[in-house]
Amino acid sequence: MTCRYATRMGKTPRSFIREILKVTESPEIISFAGGLPNPALISVKDIAEAARSVFESGGVAALQYATTEGYLPLREFIADRYRQRLGLDVGPDEVLITSGSQQALDLIGKVFLDAGDVVAIERPGYLGAIQAFSLYEPCFCPVPLEEDGPALSALERTLEERDVRLFYGVPNSQNPSGITWSREKRECVASLLDGTDTVFVEDDAYGELRFSGRSLSPVKKYLPDSTVLTGSFSKIVAPGLRMGWICAKPETLDRLVVAKQASDLHSSTFAQRVLARYLQDTDIDAHVREICRVYDRHCTLMASLIDDLFPDGVTRTEPDGGMFLWVTLPPGLSSMALFERALAERVAVLPGLPFYVDGGGENTVRLNFSNADEDGITEGMHRLARALRA
Amino acid sequence: MTCRYATRMGKTPRSFIREILKVTESPEIISFAGGLPNPALISVKDIAEAARSVFESGGVAALQYATTEGYLPLREFIADRYRQRLGLDVGPDEVLITSGSQQALDLIGKVFLDAGDVVAIERPGYLGAIQAFSLYEPCFCPVPLEEDGPALSALERTLEERDVRLFYGVPNSQNPSGITWSREKRECVASLLDGTDTVFVEDDAYGELRFSGRSLSPVKKYLPDSTVLTGSFSKIVAPGLRMGWICAKPETLDRLVVAKQASDLHSSTFAQRVLARYLQDTDIDAHVREICRVYDRHCTLMASLIDDLFPDGVTRTEPDGGMFLWVTLPPGLSSMALFERALAERVAVLPGLPFYVDGGGENTVRLNFSNADEDGITEGMHRLARALRA
Repeated sequence: MTCRYATRMGKTPRSFIREILKVTESPEIISFAGGLPNPALISVKDIAEAARSVFESGGVAALQYATTEGYLPLREFIADRYRQRLGLDVGPDEVLITSGSQQALDLIGKVFLDAGDVVAIERPGYLGAIQAFSLYEPCFCPVPLEEDGPALSALERTLEERDVRLFYGVPNSQNPSGITWSREKRECVASLLDGTDTVFVEDDAYGELRFSGRSLSPVKKYLPDSTVLTGSFSKIVAPGLRMGWICAKPETLDRLVVAKQASDLHSSTFAQRVLARYLQDTDIDAHVREICRVYDRHCTLMASLIDDLFPDGVTRTEPDGGMFLWVTLPPGLSSMALFERALAERVAVLPGLPFYVDGGGENTVRLNFSNADEDGITEGMHRLARALRA
Repeated sequence: MTCRYATRMGKTPRSFIREILKVTESPEIISFAGGLPNPALISVKDIAEAARSVFESGGVAALQYATTEGYLPLREFIADRYRQRLGLDVGPDEVLITSGSQQALDLIGKVFLDAGDVVAIERPGYLGAIQAFSLYEPCFCPVPLEEDGPALSALERTLEERDVRLFYGVPNSQNPSGITWSREKRECVASLLDGTDTVFVEDDAYGELRFSGRSLSPVKKYLPDSTVLTGSFSKIVAPGLRMGWICAKPETLDRLVVAKQASDLHSSTFAQRVLARYLQDTDIDAHVREICRVYDRHCTLMASLIDDLFPDGVTRTEPDGGMFLWVTLPPGLSSMALFERALAERVAVLPGLPFYVDGGGENTVRLNFSNADEDGITEGMHRLARALRA
């Protein structure tokens, strides 16, 4: 017997990345395809010590049911850090702990999207958000991404012509492009959205990983009421804890809490408490600086190898943070064909196609510079250059 | 500015239990309102030891991104245990790890339910399932629960008259009633559903907590293809790990994996590995036997206090497992009024109303016997009897 499934399942992109990552799991392949942090920058020993300490002091409370909103000391840490780092005035009652920032996107879709609602998204846009929102059957409207953020005229036209429910963007070191929105663009986007019904979903997974230039204020600072801001500990502590959050005004947070409770009651008490203890006992600023120092070196190395080894006509972005470089091949060259040839050379890349909700991007490639070490990057880029020349 | 929210948010019951649990959190209140395991039966020391051992041997893999399906040794444990305990022949490729069995329900809603689809559910039915499914805007059809399972004639009529997408039930020690479906009813339900388009969602959160009589085969045994079976480690290990699972045929599991990936990528790698290690190093059968022994004693004590102290006309169920007793007050008595009076006596109960998708149940009460210890149960039931007599 074949089951009937919900309509939404037909609208969710078959996970291209998942299929690709399966192919690239083999140890002899150097992978620039995923989005994993560098394993040497995950503080296993300190997290183990935090776990030991939680069991010693908290005991059974760390293993029992808990509130949906999340562990208060963790929410306080997040609110305090927003205040200190970005001058953003939010309290712990505006923070909901989620199972990674992927769950934040799912809950935002649940709370805001009816089938057919319009979601504006950067072009190229983050695949994980496209997947999460797709389950709520929206209509996507791409807004072209320029070197300093979204094309304002296109955004303005979209807002005029369509009833845009959500505008989703990644203003810091965007995934997949590595682009950071300028301060001017942030202010302009906020002023375009101000007074409209559109909610801005500000995905800030990479804001702490800024390795050149100063941190810019989030759009939420200019548009506090209508911005739902998401964050993640996956990039600065460890992805396996699955700890992220949503920061939104209390009225919206209240709905998100109802959705979260229906979705999984609450995130792991255990992981929340271990994380909170780790953050309390460690110098997280020093750890983040170390991550930035290493990723800066990785990014510079990868960029210089692109410039030295790749054929003329290949262009790339100039990230000031994050984990990704975005490469555009000369017109007519196919990134899917490159993917195949690269795999034969034992290096994996991610073709850019799935980041385009309206098709296109056939000659674009996303390269991850966080996961591999410098030797791996050097060897991998030579392999990739051979594949490109083939 | 007031935000617009999705239509589904208006259809999700405001969390009655959450509001009630907040009132009952005060330490001087003895609570029979929640559904927490007994804290003395959570093996903090052994889980701490498992965590230590995972960090020592697994290291960074326990903190990195992982596959959506879940940690293979944990999925193998679940499949093996189904085979050993219940003679159910499933492989690890039919198991998806979820963040508690609440997330299992959310994913099942995502994968199967379009707005307006019919979900048949026991009456009274589990509130967490009503909440999870509500977000997918179904139409609920209650099937009265008799002493040995659902009323077959009502189920048959519902299946004939409506295009039932899902039938959701808790055959072992049901929440809220404590009722266990008889073997005959399981076979009859399977044969009624066989050959139809209806998927049976078999929630088996309490199957291991059976303290009298032998374990019965799950409905999935009689209806393997069309049954989606969910399970949880919350009741036999610890709820704070948020570890549950879905067991379904590969074709269905594949859709559930896509939905899970869009929802939160995967459940905590860390919690999965610690749990797997704990299960490997502990005598889980002995631990489950101990839980059953204690809950049996609690249930017997609470039942005898109901019989001794409560006024004539109060009836109760006779659970053979699980965590809940279900009490029906004489007609005309209101469980909401009892809730208020009980709170004044510093004891909390859960009025049965939110378990009825079509209204009713005003004189029903759910009592949890797992969380409090025997002194607490004795004192609490005396307080409750005073409230009842008031």
